[in-house]
Amino acid sequence: MSHYLVITGGVGGAKLALGLSKIMPASDVTFAVNTGDDFDYLGFHISPDIDTLTYTLAGLNDTDRGWGRREESWNFLSTLQTLDEETWFQLGDRDLAIHVYRTSLLAQGKTLSEVTDGIAKKLGISHFLVPMTDQSLRTVVVTADGKLPFQDYFVKYQAKPVVEAIEFSGSTGARLSPGVSEALSRPELGGVIICPSNPYLSIDPILSIPGFRALLSEITVPVIAVSPIIGGKAIKGPTEKIMHEMNLEAGCSSLSVAHHYRDILDGIIIDTMDAALSDDITALGLEVSVGETLMTSLQIKKDLAQQCLALIEKIQS
Amino acid sequence: MSHYLVITGGVGGAKLALGLSKIMPASDVTFAVNTGDDFDYLGFHISPDIDTLTYTLAGLNDTDRGWGRREESWNFLSTLQTLDEETWFQLGDRDLAIHVYRTSLLAQGKTLSEVTDGIAKKLGISHFLVPMTDQSLRTVVVTADGKLPFQDYFVKYQAKPVVEAIEFSGSTGARLSPGVSEALSRPELGGVIICPSNPYLSIDPILSIPGFRALLSEITVPVIAVSPIIGGKAIKGPTEKIMHEMNLEAGCSSLSVAHHYRDILDGIIIDTMDAALSDDITALGLEVSVGETLMTSLQIKKDLAQQCLALIEKIQS
Repeated sequence: MSHYLVITGGVGGAKLALGLSKIMPASDVTFAVNTGDDFDYLGFHISPDIDTLTYTLAGLNDTDRGWGRREESWNFLSTLQTLDEETWFQLGDRDLAIHVYRTSLLAQGKTLSEVTDGIAKKLGISHFLVPMTDQSLRTVVVTADGKLPFQDYFVKYQAKPVVEAIEFSGSTGARLSPGVSEALSRPELGGVIICPSNPYLSIDPILSIPGFRALLSEITVPVIAVSPIIGGKAIKGPTEKIMHEMNLEAGCSSLSVAHHYRDILDGIIIDTMDAALSDDITALGLEVSVGETLMTSLQIKKDLAQQCLALIEKIQS
Repeated sequence: MSHYLVITGGVGGAKLALGLSKIMPASDVTFAVNTGDDFDYLGFHISPDIDTLTYTLAGLNDTDRGWGRREESWNFLSTLQTLDEETWFQLGDRDLAIHVYRTSLLAQGKTLSEVTDGIAKKLGISHFLVPMTDQSLRTVVVTADGKLPFQDYFVKYQAKPVVEAIEFSGSTGARLSPGVSEALSRPELGGVIICPSNPYLSIDPILSIPGFRALLSEITVPVIAVSPIIGGKAIKGPTEKIMHEMNLEAGCSSLSVAHHYRDILDGIIIDTMDAALSDDITALGLEVSVGETLMTSLQIKKDLAQQCLALIEKIQS
């Protein structure tokens, strides 16, 4: 029985994570989640990507809205807005309970790993769900309008400022969380899967933890990724806009994603729409697998999860 | 035009405060509210009595439940309870917004007076609503089971422990808030009204602020109270139980209330049911006014408010 380390950001990554959770026993996978988007708001420690994974794996996510909890109400927020017009972050009444509980436990000295695990278990998640790090590592978007904390860039300014670079404040002092380290040191580690999240905003924060990128490039088990780009477009969020603003040689494409990860990847799954890129990606030394990556149903999520395991197996053999 | 300083605790006091607010122009009255019940919960600064006054004067209070806001929802609390079984304080989704907003502003260095005034104005209250003090002064209930912060005694232990004494932690360093001081120094000050709140738990905290009790006993304008006891019973809360536990000579009665305040009062309003106590109270040197004090309608609240002004006028003349 192999164990897999799955590296993920928020919404897009959570879809593949859900598929993987459905085809693998709880003890066979560790979901390591980006915390670069974490921020403090009104005194609460908010971990957007951890919450997305938690709600998704617990079956509590709102699939229509695409984020947050099902059966959510907004009476806290609407009341707050009568007091403070500058309220810009969408905090649902149920969602807020998670932030308050987390903040309270962190203030008591618990680590983010402990708090994340506690919440996941209380909500009935049996898989390992861990933050990438227990230290503060914050994604900072360097824009033409100045440096912006990720949530300011993403929510407050709706990803409109032009991105010049992305920095990870605090990465020098960050260490992999115990759960990630433990997964990596398991003798039965079978592979590492990078979910189709934004490579620059959601995966790079994890890769910026000292030693981790080098470790992945040297590790003997296969490291694969699922490209978040389909036909030159991103499903959601600012990925596409950012990739254009970065003046990448291959533009917003799965080839650019392969380039970005080439030092750590052994294989990549790209969408059937991008099959024509296979030769160029293979030329980078990567195994390419083509399939349906637009995860519009649970079956497709599970199929893509199976395809990840198949690609890892192919690379290993 | 005279100005009146009204001293009040939560629910019972808020009823008279509402009556007074309906018969007096906004600039003619300052409501000074007990903050001895304030506490920190999950990192929030909660001011139960200020909130009760705020919701009542803004017409946002839930009159059926008797506390909290109208049209309240409880999704935050129910979610929190799935995470933490020890959650004991009832926090509605709308109510929570007030606590979060207050806590956020206090953390920015604003005073409780500034925050209270800001919230009141945002909710459309035109009267002066001020905390008794901007410093931390906490009511501690000394019980047979040990010392308990007020909310622990009142909510968590449902006022069951036997009360031996009541202490006011931090009173030595507390000063009257600017709004109370300003009301007291107005040349047009016409009187001081103590609302029918629990004398020991809701009014004594205010009287424990150094110099205030002496000031009230010496002040030249009339100081009156409305007794919270009707026919040996309190309308609500632990007043009656506490008064019995304190082994007062006159038991749980308006006579005991008059005794308790005798050094500062010039007059007191007692219920018609207690008219027989008038002679004993008059013997203490107080002007007694008898009337309907069970405020079951807005008209009765306004009538009782008028009776307060009439008693002050009678004492002055």
